[in-house]
Amino acid sequence: MSLLDETVGAVRAPDQDVMADAARHQARLTKPPGSLGLLEDLSVRLAGLAGSFPPPLPAPAAVAVFAADHGVHIRGVTPWPQQVTAQMVANFLAGGAVVNAVAAQVGATVVVVDVGVATPLSETDGLLIRKVRPGTRDMTAGPALTREETLAAVEVGVSVATALVDDGAGVLLTGDMGIANTTASAALIAAFTGEDPERVTGRGTGVDDETLARKIEVVRAALALHLPDPADPMGVLAKFGGLEHAALAGFLVGAAARRTPVILDGVIAGAAALAAKAIAPDAVAGWVAGHRSAEPGHRVALRALGLDPLIDLGLRLGEGSGALLALPMVQSSVRILRDVATFDSAGVSEKTL
Amino acid sequence: MSLLDETVGAVRAPDQDVMADAARHQARLTKPPGSLGLLEDLSVRLAGLAGSFPPPLPAPAAVAVFAADHGVHIRGVTPWPQQVTAQMVANFLAGGAVVNAVAAQVGATVVVVDVGVATPLSETDGLLIRKVRPGTRDMTAGPALTREETLAAVEVGVSVATALVDDGAGVLLTGDMGIANTTASAALIAAFTGEDPERVTGRGTGVDDETLARKIEVVRAALALHLPDPADPMGVLAKFGGLEHAALAGFLVGAAARRTPVILDGVIAGAAALAAKAIAPDAVAGWVAGHRSAEPGHRVALRALGLDPLIDLGLRLGEGSGALLALPMVQSSVRILRDVATFDSAGVSEKTL
Repeated sequence: MSLLDETVGAVRAPDQDVMADAARHQARLTKPPGSLGLLEDLSVRLAGLAGSFPPPLPAPAAVAVFAADHGVHIRGVTPWPQQVTAQMVANFLAGGAVVNAVAAQVGATVVVVDVGVATPLSETDGLLIRKVRPGTRDMTAGPALTREETLAAVEVGVSVATALVDDGAGVLLTGDMGIANTTASAALIAAFTGEDPERVTGRGTGVDDETLARKIEVVRAALALHLPDPADPMGVLAKFGGLEHAALAGFLVGAAARRTPVILDGVIAGAAALAAKAIAPDAVAGWVAGHRSAEPGHRVALRALGLDPLIDLGLRLGEGSGALLALPMVQSSVRILRDVATFDSAGVSEKTL
Repeated sequence: MSLLDETVGAVRAPDQDVMADAARHQARLTKPPGSLGLLEDLSVRLAGLAGSFPPPLPAPAAVAVFAADHGVHIRGVTPWPQQVTAQMVANFLAGGAVVNAVAAQVGATVVVVDVGVATPLSETDGLLIRKVRPGTRDMTAGPALTREETLAAVEVGVSVATALVDDGAGVLLTGDMGIANTTASAALIAAFTGEDPERVTGRGTGVDDETLARKIEVVRAALALHLPDPADPMGVLAKFGGLEHAALAGFLVGAAARRTPVILDGVIAGAAALAAKAIAPDAVAGWVAGHRSAEPGHRVALRALGLDPLIDLGLRLGEGSGALLALPMVQSSVRILRDVATFDSAGVSEKTL
């Protein structure tokens, strides 16, 4: 039995009794019922995930930035050179990127995982080398990955989630880095949702009209070549990649097996989550959409996942930045459920009628 | 010269040269230009407010919860008894309310200001007694406040802002508590924007259809009685109250005079900000809309203020909760501008055409 099979087997549906207890308590807190909207439902869901009321505070937080390259880069889908993936990994390790600044602000540790960067890198503080191969193959010429490589990358994600939880993390956040990864994301989202490539392919880092048109055609060609079957998520991940998407899918399932919530970042995480949901449908209960990005495919992915985002500012950076910005809201939702007084305990009158 | 006049005289427009420096630097950070959207503009604006580049980190944070009662309560605009205002003040002081839980999570101190609670309260740790009068008069029978009372309440807000900045706060947040205060907010927003009462009056804590209809008629009657002049903001505040709105208006102008940013909470802050903008138009540059609440008047107020909210989750609690939830985003925006490496310093390649 593979690590992935064992992990999928350990995923449980949320505890409905605990959720009912949490919802009853939520309704007794000293505030108008429903006045915190989504945050109320979120705290109830996290209680169900933990299987205990009150649920543990989702802390400490760790963001895992999965970095990898994409063979489809040679198709001209982005103006950024491929070496930027490795350069940004160096920037993360030096503490100079946005993910570092936001993690420092909200209180999260950053771990970077090389699951497939094209450039050779050496293990160092904060960087795990788990390279399955140096970037995917071009999805328009054939499968981006073999099934064996796909499984290896997914299991990297499972192992990273497990290790972070073993080290004490109470909430995980997804991060990603990989030049051309919005192209792979668009192909995955189209494959899992059946949407037309034009509706799920966006400007990524901000490409011009000509590049966007080429990107859409690349995604369309890859879909036509592979005729993906959404009921075969490992096959879909193999056809389009990327290695970071496969690892993120494993990360999401691995966290669920440990009943640990995960805050999703943007479109890369959304595409990976569609694969993870197909692998382990009950795992969705532990995922929180940190934000909705400017990428059109992200909206489609979140709808298919049934997740409402906490932040909707049109961010499109990645790295885990949107998930980190949402972390204090997720933590606040649970802290409110745990710490706020009830009408009875505080001696506050209730409304008449 | 009154304290208010002096304070208004000290408000400066944001420093355009500093903003240009900040925008140039923002464009050199190691991320796709524009990928952090609103947060990029926000950091540039806060540099202009501070008049220095890089701007100071907006910390430590202090939320001031202005509490007061409303004479219009007797018109049946809410099912909550008036004594809940004082009971919730006690809850704030005991640390049992949502504002306390979220403040603890995001790192902010809470100060409660009795600027007009109907129930007599005693000064205690965390509570400032600055009661101008025990609640406003019924706005449908005559002016809610005299001009003298209005000025006194506004100056309470100025003094609280000044004291918090003197004590070291680097960012202020608005909070409020006052049963029936969404009715006063609706009247203020209608008065300042000219919108019909039906479009700016909402369900507040969640009132039923019958109460909502009554609330709209109450606002309409008050507007018809007073014929407010939006060019006379002190007169508008006097006509409708509330004492917390007047204090919040002063708080917003007082913070601006000290070049200190303020994160606005929901519709009560939005209504007060319309008054503050009319009193000191340049002060707007230092205000950040923490969120957009479910109250329809809040959308109208934010549009009139020209502020885009950071969070849009349909929250409708008040107390400062929405402002607190946005605090980490505001702090992150500045931290990114201060700490993130540039393409040159990090040795990251830029995009080719």
